[in-house]
Amino acid sequence: MNVGIGSVSVENVRLGDDGSAVVIVDQTLLPNETVFLELREAGELYDAIVMLRVRGAPAIGIFAAFALYVLALRLPPCDYDTFRAQVFKHSAYLDSARPTAVNLSKQLRRMERLVNDLNGSPVPVIIETMRVEAEQIQLEDIQMCKAISEFGLTLIGDGCGIMTHCNAGPLATSRYGTGLGPILLARERGLNLRVYCCETRPLLQGARLTTYELMNAGVDCTLICDNMASIVMKEGKVDAVFTGCDRVARNGDAANKIGTSGLAVLAKHYGVPFYVFCPSSTIDLDCASGADIEIEQRPPGEIKELFFQKPVAPAGVKCYNPAFDVTDSDLITAIVTEKGICRAPYFESLAQFVNE
Amino acid sequence: MNVGIGSVSVENVRLGDDGSAVVIVDQTLLPNETVFLELREAGELYDAIVMLRVRGAPAIGIFAAFALYVLALRLPPCDYDTFRAQVFKHSAYLDSARPTAVNLSKQLRRMERLVNDLNGSPVPVIIETMRVEAEQIQLEDIQMCKAISEFGLTLIGDGCGIMTHCNAGPLATSRYGTGLGPILLARERGLNLRVYCCETRPLLQGARLTTYELMNAGVDCTLICDNMASIVMKEGKVDAVFTGCDRVARNGDAANKIGTSGLAVLAKHYGVPFYVFCPSSTIDLDCASGADIEIEQRPPGEIKELFFQKPVAPAGVKCYNPAFDVTDSDLITAIVTEKGICRAPYFESLAQFVNE
Repeated sequence: MNVGIGSVSVENVRLGDDGSAVVIVDQTLLPNETVFLELREAGELYDAIVMLRVRGAPAIGIFAAFALYVLALRLPPCDYDTFRAQVFKHSAYLDSARPTAVNLSKQLRRMERLVNDLNGSPVPVIIETMRVEAEQIQLEDIQMCKAISEFGLTLIGDGCGIMTHCNAGPLATSRYGTGLGPILLARERGLNLRVYCCETRPLLQGARLTTYELMNAGVDCTLICDNMASIVMKEGKVDAVFTGCDRVARNGDAANKIGTSGLAVLAKHYGVPFYVFCPSSTIDLDCASGADIEIEQRPPGEIKELFFQKPVAPAGVKCYNPAFDVTDSDLITAIVTEKGICRAPYFESLAQFVNE
Repeated sequence: MNVGIGSVSVENVRLGDDGSAVVIVDQTLLPNETVFLELREAGELYDAIVMLRVRGAPAIGIFAAFALYVLALRLPPCDYDTFRAQVFKHSAYLDSARPTAVNLSKQLRRMERLVNDLNGSPVPVIIETMRVEAEQIQLEDIQMCKAISEFGLTLIGDGCGIMTHCNAGPLATSRYGTGLGPILLARERGLNLRVYCCETRPLLQGARLTTYELMNAGVDCTLICDNMASIVMKEGKVDAVFTGCDRVARNGDAANKIGTSGLAVLAKHYGVPFYVFCPSSTIDLDCASGADIEIEQRPPGEIKELFFQKPVAPAGVKCYNPAFDVTDSDLITAIVTEKGICRAPYFESLAQFVNE
């Protein structure tokens, strides 16, 4: 489905017209090129996640559900036990693509449960039910993002300055997005905001994707390098920081794109509220704190070679390239979910939303 | 003169062999290419500063002194008044290249005073004295950097982790550097440090120049994106942050490369000492606080186009691109000069070093 508000964005995840492929826009090429990829093979589906052709915690979850359906569809005819074994094997493979965002494993577990629950049904029926389930996951995401956006909108007013990190817009989810959701909703309702987009090194999702989405929506946005956030906040231009999130631990520690924790420290220092936006599926009560969240380490080339163009550092230089970091909960003013706004103590507020 | 310790670096500023040009290594091309430029014309000398072919507050001051000498040398024969007027005109032009670093204007004022003081001397004698003065400025810088390095070395010990921002090494000064001085001196003395180099967007001086100098010196260094500083500090890898400085106000507020204030906020949050290194000529008592320091704004292309290669953001995106920011003095643990280590209250400690 088209994931934008009006022409905000492009379709990021859908089934191909014949239903046998997952079609994504290659997010590594935006905004310079809009290239759609039809993916069918396990290897290319896995690579699409690893290479960030599809990215954003919720979008990866949606993609993985469709991917598992397509892989199931392409299995040779077989009995249930063989089918289940093959599907679970593919699911484990897809799940190993990236460790930090919980949505990937959560949606794959949901698809696996479906297969378990349908033990005894004809395999073609199971496959068809998997398709419906993947579409349901995407539909729920759109509804969650809308609800998150409505809650978020209560936190800001006309004329506000918002700082964002990475991309938590339609490309990262489905319609609206998480962190960008309230901003796009505000625009629909005629509010004028000023948005400062941190470029988000090393892969520049803020520069490439967030400005693209906000400009398409007609939102006043300004691109800054990540290290300019301090001065922009100091100058009083920022009324709130809005970010998405890849996993929230039980105590409210939130893993998100590398650099998020730094923005939170700055926000605290400058007295700016720091808001994290995510669907409640992003909350992982199995993690007691951020220390339990595995942080993905990415290849040095992402820092050194700027999309593999001319090197900007000596060839042999060592790099440290975590793809995410953990923001301690005491730096987070609130966590906004589609079920409401969580504030500290997160032990209480988060569990209440997940366990009801 | 060769500005490295051993083979740490390359000659960054010197007079050409025939004395009629300033020779610099083009720092925008390092580390991929080592290209030396012979500069004679006012326009190309000015551009070298604007384009950051020569950069680093002390190095710009040294370069400007040599540049003014070369421009004086190339004037047609004339009387003192004409000579003085032309030299002052060139000096004002060079001074207008960049506003934030005080060293540029301070060294030009020093050369102007020399010309004033020699009123009555034959013009060729004045010109020759200007050459000696420029060389003296460079020699003093080396001595200051050595002294700064010795003071800085008392702040760290074997095995320490140091975080740096931008480049405050030999390329930015003469031998040793300011912020890198203690690190290079430590290496000479056999200490083992671990250095985390923030890449320093948008022009990547940390990635391109600091890692280059540290690797040449055999120092263990790791390149990170600027937004990774928070997690690296949180992980306990950093015992101190070392930066250079472009101008220090009377109250200790310090202007330095964009991103420095953010590192200081992070350092405070994580309990890491934050040290600023600079020659005392960088202290500007005419500035009451950082609010009086003019911050240079640079072209959007530096953010959007990554050295004018393939764009990484939409063509029309607005950018906010200050080249520096101001770090409030209450975030600075100490300011290290060649005369000693200043701590708060800076009103007292800084003035004592400048006014003696």
